[in-house]
Amino acid sequence: MTKKIDPCTLVLFGATGNLARVKLYPGLYRLDLLGRLPENMKIMGVGRRPIDHEKWCEGIKDMVHKKFKGKVDEAVLARFIARNVYKANEPDDAQAFDKMKDILSDESVYPQNFAYFLSVRPVDFGPIVEELAKVGLTQEDKYWRRVVVEKPFGTDLPSAKALQASLTKNLDEHQIYRIDHYLGKSALQNILLQRFTNTILEPLWNNEYIDHVQITNTEKLGVGDRTEFYDSTGALRDMIQSHVLQTLALTTMEMPKDLTPDGIREAKIDVLEQIRPIPVDELEKHAFRAQYAAGEVAGEKVPGYLEELGDDSSVVETYAALKLFIDNPRWKGVPFYIRTAKRLHEADTRIAIRFKKAPMQINGGQDQNWLVIGIQPRECIKMEIQSKIPGLDINTRTIELDADNRKSEDDTVDAYEALLLNLMQGDNANYLHISEAEAQWRLVDPVVKAWAEDRKPVHQYPAGSQDPEASKVIFESEDQFWRYSIALGGDKH
Amino acid sequence: MTKKIDPCTLVLFGATGNLARVKLYPGLYRLDLLGRLPENMKIMGVGRRPIDHEKWCEGIKDMVHKKFKGKVDEAVLARFIARNVYKANEPDDAQAFDKMKDILSDESVYPQNFAYFLSVRPVDFGPIVEELAKVGLTQEDKYWRRVVVEKPFGTDLPSAKALQASLTKNLDEHQIYRIDHYLGKSALQNILLQRFTNTILEPLWNNEYIDHVQITNTEKLGVGDRTEFYDSTGALRDMIQSHVLQTLALTTMEMPKDLTPDGIREAKIDVLEQIRPIPVDELEKHAFRAQYAAGEVAGEKVPGYLEELGDDSSVVETYAALKLFIDNPRWKGVPFYIRTAKRLHEADTRIAIRFKKAPMQINGGQDQNWLVIGIQPRECIKMEIQSKIPGLDINTRTIELDADNRKSEDDTVDAYEALLLNLMQGDNANYLHISEAEAQWRLVDPVVKAWAEDRKPVHQYPAGSQDPEASKVIFESEDQFWRYSIALGGDKH
Repeated sequence: MTKKIDPCTLVLFGATGNLARVKLYPGLYRLDLLGRLPENMKIMGVGRRPIDHEKWCEGIKDMVHKKFKGKVDEAVLARFIARNVYKANEPDDAQAFDKMKDILSDESVYPQNFAYFLSVRPVDFGPIVEELAKVGLTQEDKYWRRVVVEKPFGTDLPSAKALQASLTKNLDEHQIYRIDHYLGKSALQNILLQRFTNTILEPLWNNEYIDHVQITNTEKLGVGDRTEFYDSTGALRDMIQSHVLQTLALTTMEMPKDLTPDGIREAKIDVLEQIRPIPVDELEKHAFRAQYAAGEVAGEKVPGYLEELGDDSSVVETYAALKLFIDNPRWKGVPFYIRTAKRLHEADTRIAIRFKKAPMQINGGQDQNWLVIGIQPRECIKMEIQSKIPGLDINTRTIELDADNRKSEDDTVDAYEALLLNLMQGDNANYLHISEAEAQWRLVDPVVKAWAEDRKPVHQYPAGSQDPEASKVIFESEDQFWRYSIALGGDKH
Repeated sequence: MTKKIDPCTLVLFGATGNLARVKLYPGLYRLDLLGRLPENMKIMGVGRRPIDHEKWCEGIKDMVHKKFKGKVDEAVLARFIARNVYKANEPDDAQAFDKMKDILSDESVYPQNFAYFLSVRPVDFGPIVEELAKVGLTQEDKYWRRVVVEKPFGTDLPSAKALQASLTKNLDEHQIYRIDHYLGKSALQNILLQRFTNTILEPLWNNEYIDHVQITNTEKLGVGDRTEFYDSTGALRDMIQSHVLQTLALTTMEMPKDLTPDGIREAKIDVLEQIRPIPVDELEKHAFRAQYAAGEVAGEKVPGYLEELGDDSSVVETYAALKLFIDNPRWKGVPFYIRTAKRLHEADTRIAIRFKKAPMQINGGQDQNWLVIGIQPRECIKMEIQSKIPGLDINTRTIELDADNRKSEDDTVDAYEALLLNLMQGDNANYLHISEAEAQWRLVDPVVKAWAEDRKPVHQYPAGSQDPEASKVIFESEDQFWRYSIALGGDKH
């Protein structure tokens, strides 16, 4: 299905920033290359300092060349460059937005559907929208007006609500596109498709057959030079509140009543709101945190988190694991173990589902089925089942049914390319509804708060190691273990 | 699980025949090599003409060397040879069985558990058992006595019943081991194990999710020099009545109440008896036959069946396809298409299950899931499911989850090795119960009879072709087609 796109103008705030340089401009060039930009589409980059038009165009060419080294189609690039203008909104210019309006009002140049991409500090989201509204650039009549706000949407539930209030003064919910860029990944979108377009999968997807689910997002990288940001955020807010909970929602949602953006988001909101609040009074059975200590990653010695931060008193987690339950008929009693970590032994994002014991047991019942959906680095689906060992006796072993969801010949599309296209299509299925953002904060806030208040030194794990042994405290049952993606049967821990 | 074996003596009637030479003696040697023959086990070969002991031993050595060219363990072979004796039962010797009894009564040489393997003409089954009984060699007291009869067990229901009557004069059902050598194949035994030891599979295995099932057994070979036998038998009796119906039984049986031979056979009998009789008054909607005509197989021109037979009037089928229904709650309404053929374009034995449409349809609902279990040549399990095509749009394609049930490092065990071991173990799970043989005859007899009576020339298909187009008359629905094993999605026809 290819959706139609109206002619439009993209106004990109933060055009000189890192995201714009690395993702947005190269992504827009790629869309142009693929013939997916609407005719006459214009892109207005907005920054705080004046930049000469020629220089700006050179800058964009550099971004594109840097990204697609040696593979740039110069004719397309020329066409793409011609779509671009730069506009400085100087901080001391009280007329900046009036001037912007004047420029944009030239219908012969700028298609009158406007999308504003706010790649700026969250604190600027509200004021920019306010300014746009003041000069009449957010009101919809026969043309649409859309605003994209980058992650994070608030830093807790109250701040998310405050941000929302500042936006909805001037915007309707359908105009607000909240980014969680994981939703732009084809692999995430595939969860929904694989679940509901396959008769082989859907009937198994419930508490009658599923023992538990693990959703994992680990990195080998440390916090790098983002120590200050990271120490004010932590793994729970950085990854779990957003990407991991969205992955959980896609894994657990009911079948949407239809494939419209509203249909899909309603089903996600429902399940996010059905996640049982984590009981703070017995937090240690439901949540585990740790910090990486010095260790070795890929043969290289690396420092620990506190050392990098230069502050021994930090209790901010670089490893977070939660046990969640979903209070609905489909998932009653099924634990969901979700975890994220920096400086773990492997970098992997996946969903691993362990099934209950089969009716017939040959090898003492130790060999339960797994279904694993790899998100990255490999996009794949695997099932591990029991099969007879050929030979004279009745013994079984685990075999692995394996398929790539992405094949070597498939085009790689960056999440931002997909999201930019969706924005122009008016398809916000892959953008967060405010109710999703709120449900996610509501879930993690109590844990963030409890952890911040508990100043005892945090459990340490050596960089490059597997999950800390102590993390297993959250498992419901002694026969559950962290599953790794490598190897048949998964490494157990 | 490795079952224990009592010391025993195997008495092999038809020891100079083809099966003994190609399968039984080499198979017994292999069991010896694997340490699976009981200590002191003896093997008495029985034939109609006298053979000198030395010469007999040389003959066995030849059989083993011929089979395992260059890979024979001479020490094991020497041990194996020492287990063997030859005994001539000359047709005009009225005392032949008395003499056999005298020889076998030497307990210092012959373990007193006796297994008789009747690799002789079916017409001799009854008389040999009668002779054995007369001299007291079939009666069990503290030692067991078992009789193996080779396929076919009768040529129709009345002859099977007559044969059974001739055997049960002297034997109890538990002493009779009826061979369908397909049941000795690890791949067949695996059907039961894969179905019931996997939570991922069992819940899908019913009419709620399954659209239809195809069980296929095709060969590229023609009838070769067996024209006379073949023309008195036909594809239906040669393959469908035995191997294909057994494969169907394993595919459709309920979970056995336990994994004992009785438990397994009871469940198979139940489902075989629940197959709805084929309505002879509308046979053309349920059964299709054809004969191969001259054609080309693997680049070589080959003659047609009638030509090979030298008789244009034959209506015996080399291609047979049936549509069956099973009248029980699990399978109500699910058509089973079973087929066998000589001189088809591919040699393949497999079970292919097509699932009903999924609740969510992306590509017009044409992409239904398949689960394919390969029996031979490749032992494998595949699932075909829908997955998102990576990229900017919401489209799906079929991907294939694939696993080998047999891996390259696995030992290859011949079906007869497994069956000989089972015989000594007293495990008749992989031998036919009389009720299975009878149910299978009851099902095919009316079709055999109707086809024999219909003398119109039979539909011809060129050797090396795909299924005759006309065979599709048995399909219930226009969107059903013969599935081939090759390639993703299966070739359609």
